[in-house]
Amino acid sequence: MKAIGSFKGEPITDSDSLVDVEVPTPDLAEHDVLVEVKAVSVNPVDTKLRAGAPSQKEPLILGFDAVGIVVKTGSNTTKFSKGDRVWYSGTTKRPGSNEAYQAVDERLVAKAPRSLTDEAAAAMPLTSITAYELLFEKMGANFGQLANPGKTLLIVNGAGGVGSVLSQLAKWAGFTVIATASPANFDWLRANGVDQPIDYHDDLETQVQGLGHHFVDAAVILYDVPSYYDAVTKLVAPGGHIGAIVGTQAKLNMEQLKSKSLSLDWEYMFAKGDFDFRMETQGEALRQIAQLVDNNFVHTTLSRTIDSGLNAKNLREAHQVVEEGHVVGKVVVSGPFNGQVNE
Amino acid sequence: MKAIGSFKGEPITDSDSLVDVEVPTPDLAEHDVLVEVKAVSVNPVDTKLRAGAPSQKEPLILGFDAVGIVVKTGSNTTKFSKGDRVWYSGTTKRPGSNEAYQAVDERLVAKAPRSLTDEAAAAMPLTSITAYELLFEKMGANFGQLANPGKTLLIVNGAGGVGSVLSQLAKWAGFTVIATASPANFDWLRANGVDQPIDYHDDLETQVQGLGHHFVDAAVILYDVPSYYDAVTKLVAPGGHIGAIVGTQAKLNMEQLKSKSLSLDWEYMFAKGDFDFRMETQGEALRQIAQLVDNNFVHTTLSRTIDSGLNAKNLREAHQVVEEGHVVGKVVVSGPFNGQVNE
Repeated sequence: MKAIGSFKGEPITDSDSLVDVEVPTPDLAEHDVLVEVKAVSVNPVDTKLRAGAPSQKEPLILGFDAVGIVVKTGSNTTKFSKGDRVWYSGTTKRPGSNEAYQAVDERLVAKAPRSLTDEAAAAMPLTSITAYELLFEKMGANFGQLANPGKTLLIVNGAGGVGSVLSQLAKWAGFTVIATASPANFDWLRANGVDQPIDYHDDLETQVQGLGHHFVDAAVILYDVPSYYDAVTKLVAPGGHIGAIVGTQAKLNMEQLKSKSLSLDWEYMFAKGDFDFRMETQGEALRQIAQLVDNNFVHTTLSRTIDSGLNAKNLREAHQVVEEGHVVGKVVVSGPFNGQVNE
Repeated sequence: MKAIGSFKGEPITDSDSLVDVEVPTPDLAEHDVLVEVKAVSVNPVDTKLRAGAPSQKEPLILGFDAVGIVVKTGSNTTKFSKGDRVWYSGTTKRPGSNEAYQAVDERLVAKAPRSLTDEAAAAMPLTSITAYELLFEKMGANFGQLANPGKTLLIVNGAGGVGSVLSQLAKWAGFTVIATASPANFDWLRANGVDQPIDYHDDLETQVQGLGHHFVDAAVILYDVPSYYDAVTKLVAPGGHIGAIVGTQAKLNMEQLKSKSLSLDWEYMFAKGDFDFRMETQGEALRQIAQLVDNNFVHTTLSRTIDSGLNAKNLREAHQVVEEGHVVGKVVVSGPFNGQVNE
């Protein structure tokens, strides 16, 4: 079958960085479904794994956001039937969604929202799962419409992929949402549920306190934790939570956390798959998110579609956009895999 | 009135390290009650603050665990009346309980358990509040009898002050409790609700996994966080919590937390008082703990009583026992303040 892969870490401007390849159709493990991939999106994890990959003989197949159709089910599956339209993120431990047919553990999968196109849906799984797990599983927010009245959430980097879903989920859950971005993206923030956009160029404490918040109940740092750590530990209320998703080698001062009884909540959406631990909760999260989408509480963060086919050239273009880092919302590639599909 | 104070940081073997002093009876702020102190206990925070104190003209009055009788109420109090027998920990921002009459914000106070003597009750507030806040407010455990079925908690340093209450609360809440101590203290651990005592001299991972736990759901490090951090991050399940109360200057590796979606929950029971934030929840925690005590779900961790009077000599003895660090359970000093009490 057709796939798009890498044989070594190359700059994305190099035409060898992602190439069209032919690989065997995957065998199914007992909990797997085989999905005919219709649309994928590109996340920062794709570009990092691609650029950092060692030389290898077998192609590295990335892609951690997909929408497609179930065409076959494993011997011990219960959730899906042939023809189901599904969405998922998957795991970095196996080949990703940049291939015509992908085997994925059904516990990580849910039916895709009926109200979204393949492209609009493919933009969502990884960022939505991250935002959902961070807010509701890690930071102790109540899961439910308006279930956190009077609570305030500060999002550092609100216009990025995760931020743009997190703000919507938090708004639905009843938080007052403050988020940083460039002023050019304030409309994007507001469209995604942010009540109070603030300028990331200016002092965080001054702006948040200027809005009348002596403390916020929780904050999420979605970019460069060390740069925002001091300000955020001052702004979060005693007993509060600080969420983070971007790893750091820097030394973080624990005394600032201890003196206010703060929690530092790390979220990495591949952890459940990596450790084969409570994987079914990830499918359940996607099921809940699909419902929120179909009920118009959460909308897609798709901002750019390349729909002229799933091939290396188009995927390189998407990687390049993500690497440049100025993208607001998500970039999706869709359309048929080039060439004939061998089942 | 009589009090016991320090004028500078001295070794506890020096008779000047804690001295009998005469100070004015405190004025009451609007939310304060005035408590005639009957019994106090000594915690590590007392010995640290005493030893590290700069020279000062006014005596530093420590003491953060007290049982006593309300003798006067502030202009805006609602919870207590004269004659109520209360317990509390208080705040490090004001003079502590090593004085004949202490002014304390009523929001930090609850009625003492009826089933305990003054001494047995005075052993409890600081450690119980710490354990309660850590488990139920920070680490996301459900508050309720057997409300966490199937969950496992690992306590590093289970025989200390906080550990000895935490294990009881966790057992009541339905956790399987594993805790480290010296084998000489295994009976103490078992008496405090620990299901599986393990030897702190031996390898943590080997022992916990040897007991059949591939992962524990949560762990609390009550001593020397850096020494146990690597082993604990390996043992805690993806998405789990690591609680800590002892600050550290060491660099902690965040990647170990991120790759498993772990939370690092810091607990410092003075944070609410320090920041005047949700102080009423601390009184409420003490009220709940008193109920658990009176219903025989939690018992005192008092292990030694010096009941020949609240004076500098007896308090120095108690400080010395705590400083030596081999104490299991709590040391309490009680009896009348020497000399005449001036109201």
